[in-house]
Amino acid sequence: MKLDLKNGHVDMSHGSGGRAMADLIEGLFVKAFDNPVLATGDDQARLDVPKGMRLAMSTDSFVISPLFFPGGDIGSLAVHGTVNDVAMAGAKPLWLSAGFILEEGFPLKDLEKIVSSMAKAARDCGVQIVTGDTKVVEKGKGDGVYINTAGVGVLDPSLDLGPHRIVVGDAMIVNGTIGDHGMAVLARRENLDFEEPLLSDSAALADLVQSMIKSGASLHAMRDPTRGGLATALDELAGASGHGFQIEEKAIPIRTVVRGACEILGLDPLYIANEGKLLAFCPYDEAETLLAAMRAHPLGRDAALIGRVVEDKQHFVEMITPLGGRRLISRLAGEPLPRIC
Amino acid sequence: MKLDLKNGHVDMSHGSGGRAMADLIEGLFVKAFDNPVLATGDDQARLDVPKGMRLAMSTDSFVISPLFFPGGDIGSLAVHGTVNDVAMAGAKPLWLSAGFILEEGFPLKDLEKIVSSMAKAARDCGVQIVTGDTKVVEKGKGDGVYINTAGVGVLDPSLDLGPHRIVVGDAMIVNGTIGDHGMAVLARRENLDFEEPLLSDSAALADLVQSMIKSGASLHAMRDPTRGGLATALDELAGASGHGFQIEEKAIPIRTVVRGACEILGLDPLYIANEGKLLAFCPYDEAETLLAAMRAHPLGRDAALIGRVVEDKQHFVEMITPLGGRRLISRLAGEPLPRIC
Repeated sequence: MKLDLKNGHVDMSHGSGGRAMADLIEGLFVKAFDNPVLATGDDQARLDVPKGMRLAMSTDSFVISPLFFPGGDIGSLAVHGTVNDVAMAGAKPLWLSAGFILEEGFPLKDLEKIVSSMAKAARDCGVQIVTGDTKVVEKGKGDGVYINTAGVGVLDPSLDLGPHRIVVGDAMIVNGTIGDHGMAVLARRENLDFEEPLLSDSAALADLVQSMIKSGASLHAMRDPTRGGLATALDELAGASGHGFQIEEKAIPIRTVVRGACEILGLDPLYIANEGKLLAFCPYDEAETLLAAMRAHPLGRDAALIGRVVEDKQHFVEMITPLGGRRLISRLAGEPLPRIC
Repeated sequence: MKLDLKNGHVDMSHGSGGRAMADLIEGLFVKAFDNPVLATGDDQARLDVPKGMRLAMSTDSFVISPLFFPGGDIGSLAVHGTVNDVAMAGAKPLWLSAGFILEEGFPLKDLEKIVSSMAKAARDCGVQIVTGDTKVVEKGKGDGVYINTAGVGVLDPSLDLGPHRIVVGDAMIVNGTIGDHGMAVLARRENLDFEEPLLSDSAALADLVQSMIKSGASLHAMRDPTRGGLATALDELAGASGHGFQIEEKAIPIRTVVRGACEILGLDPLYIANEGKLLAFCPYDEAETLLAAMRAHPLGRDAALIGRVVEDKQHFVEMITPLGGRRLISRLAGEPLPRIC
């Protein structure tokens, strides 16, 4: 029973713990994720923490539909999503675990594509997939493949980033255009065509974060505005910081095609998911230093200062419209786009 | 929109990243898993590694059906399974991540039961659930709830356990009866009744492992025989160690009711999954020391020496039957029991 990656399909035996599962693990996962820790074949990875470092740990499950979308697929997304959550603490992500829930009948060639893309994404951002697990569920109890990744990174203990560090007067910076991921997935899902292609911004932000730290600007907090979009991240952070935020609508970078697609579909780009974006807080007079470092990085070319932290006991997020009007921004209540990540 | 844990159901908005998801996380997960790291509400946990320790990391996704079974449920199992994988390296598990994939329509009261059971299992074995994620999929794209946990533990760098340490002459020890978990789940799934109740052995082995380390016996390797059962673990370890194994059939502890149920159903208990068992290797003349330490622990009361490591270039696992016959044991090829964990 050789693993037929070209014409084969996932069957229940691939989750049995027996020979078929071992063939899948050795013939696909271990080969693609190629690293000495995983290659030991143990049920756990043993890892050395550089002296004096703390850890940052995060997890995400990915249930995105469709599995392949313009600008990425569930494999690259499963690396980027977790790497970014770890990086938002200022940590350097080093290790990932990967748990696959496969649906019986899923083509092995699609799985191979996803696993290769995952392996490439991990290599590109310098993390190793060091341990994993495979389960199989019956046809109709899943949707092709769901992936969980958990990530561990190392953190300089002198770095203490978080909403508790945000103070009145801080500048708020995004590293680029918002709404790209959600609109790309939606367009693919609904077979919508626009004059320009919509592309996910899915990317690992760990290297950009290291550049930001090295810039010397005093970073106070970072957050990646994924599900719920920029608006939800702003609302959460305002609440957690105990301050109000004031943002300038015209300062928020949005691609013309994304803005147009949102208008046609009646969606607000502020609530659309991003997978390669971060929101950063630093003292206002250090914003230029931080922006310069970000713009020198490929993932921060369109970085923009979008607002500032103000005194407000109600922790409102207020947006100043291009005509000078004011609009309150709250977090997403419903669900415009299910299974976006 | 208050969280109605008594009569409510999971809907797509619980995975949206918005207010409904925040309500679920704060009203259920953060409350149940109650610990200061999770309570920060950040997208990642920051953790301090005791000086001089290495890490051990592992992951498992749980897709068991049914979700509730005699002796446990998917929540306790999701803690035990990953804790055990970390512990098999000799590490002390400290932190878990938890990723939930919920099916639309799943009763919140069942989710609450599972989450409480998970919280209790974690408390009982001294691990903290420090970070998590919730996704929701449409009805018919999941099966109630799937849970992924990833675990990180700390490991004394002087401990080097693994199949590479197994040498000819080593004793092979199990901590108790085999086949209990798989048969309990199967009986519940198929509504089978036996004269005695079948109970899963699902348990966290981390504390037993610490007792074994403290016994002073030179542990060479450990493995938890889960999916594929004892036979598959033996076959894998023989291959990885480069030696042959000889086991005594009559020395393997099996509950009478499990043996009987297996006979009726035409199953071999050697291939049935365990969730609270481990297989340990140590020098033969230290086996009594190790056994004594194990038998003094509630999870090792029925510990037994079941065989020894022999020279064999083909790495066979040979079982000596009660009548003195010899039978070769290979790993599970097919799938007698799908979704057993």
